[in-house]
Amino acid sequence: MEFARPVANLIRQLGMLPGIGPRSAQRLALHILKMPVERVKELSDAVMQATLQTKMCQRCCNISEQDLCPVCANPNRDEKTICAIADPRDMMAIERTSEYHGYYHVLHGVISPLENVGPEQLKLRELLQRCADGTVTEVILALPPTVEGETTSLYIARMLKPLEIRVTKLAQGMPSGTELDYADHATLVSALEWRREI
Amino acid sequence: MEFARPVANLIRQLGMLPGIGPRSAQRLALHILKMPVERVKELSDAVMQATLQTKMCQRCCNISEQDLCPVCANPNRDEKTICAIADPRDMMAIERTSEYHGYYHVLHGVISPLENVGPEQLKLRELLQRCADGTVTEVILALPPTVEGETTSLYIARMLKPLEIRVTKLAQGMPSGTELDYADHATLVSALEWRREI
Repeated sequence: MEFARPVANLIRQLGMLPGIGPRSAQRLALHILKMPVERVKELSDAVMQATLQTKMCQRCCNISEQDLCPVCANPNRDEKTICAIADPRDMMAIERTSEYHGYYHVLHGVISPLENVGPEQLKLRELLQRCADGTVTEVILALPPTVEGETTSLYIARMLKPLEIRVTKLAQGMPSGTELDYADHATLVSALEWRREI
Repeated sequence: MEFARPVANLIRQLGMLPGIGPRSAQRLALHILKMPVERVKELSDAVMQATLQTKMCQRCCNISEQDLCPVCANPNRDEKTICAIADPRDMMAIERTSEYHGYYHVLHGVISPLENVGPEQLKLRELLQRCADGTVTEVILALPPTVEGETTSLYIARMLKPLEIRVTKLAQGMPSGTELDYADHATLVSALEWRREI
């Protein structure tokens, strides 16, 4: 006893998405079967259109409808600073602070040998090109504070060294509003290491 | 700062699916953007085809590619028994036991006033019709052992009463292989109530 073939196929397709196990895939598929056909069409089209109607921003590699993403298309930002991030979502997180006024560069991942992601899979060549004309004076590395993120940060620092650009990275330390005894080992070690006079 | 419009739309569509919150929807959408376009096409088509290429089995209301689902199309099953279930997945669970040889009837839900599901939203009229010609002698109610499931079972028992068909429901009691002191209150009460001589 199996699901009808098109349903089994949908379950298989959904089950290949990250974080969706076999049971979630079944539940989603049966939910989709209960949706009105026009809603199903909207979902199906949305999947396809997101891929067809977007491209990479020619400058920062962000996902964009236009050749330049809205940030890169804004001439009023600080062209001397580039903030390198691993994921387009990180751009939104930083934009929400309203504290950063430079441009971005989306690497689309971090170096991760375990997941077969080497430097050549990231948008590093594009970053190097952007830094080469002498306008950029600082690259802020805002990569995740993990082994992979750190490795990638070191790789980029070394890559940019010949250009004599200032390369900084986000501070590591205590997150705001937490208690000391809840902080994990690595966080406390970083907080000590990055301490400064007040 | 927002996601590009087609991406924002995909996130919105995915976020309307059950069990997918805003962050999962973002993660799924960005994963889909990284998939090769032919894989995206497969996913998009699978969504649409599951709806377009399936219908309800004319007899038991199961999801089916043909007019009759594989179980109903099999003439060698016991036509005197119908097992009423809430969901197509329950049919697979019962089929896996290899202990049931009758036909099924998929209600597509249980009565749930909180979720605006009344008797008229379920495939009850179809069940009544199938029971009306005198062939069926027993309807086994295999609905979930919840308040909604129980309400639905009582409703069906009352509905079938004039037909003088035997209406049974799955036993409630201790699940196999568990310990007594882990059983919840309702399970223990049921197990006592359903006890029988050995």
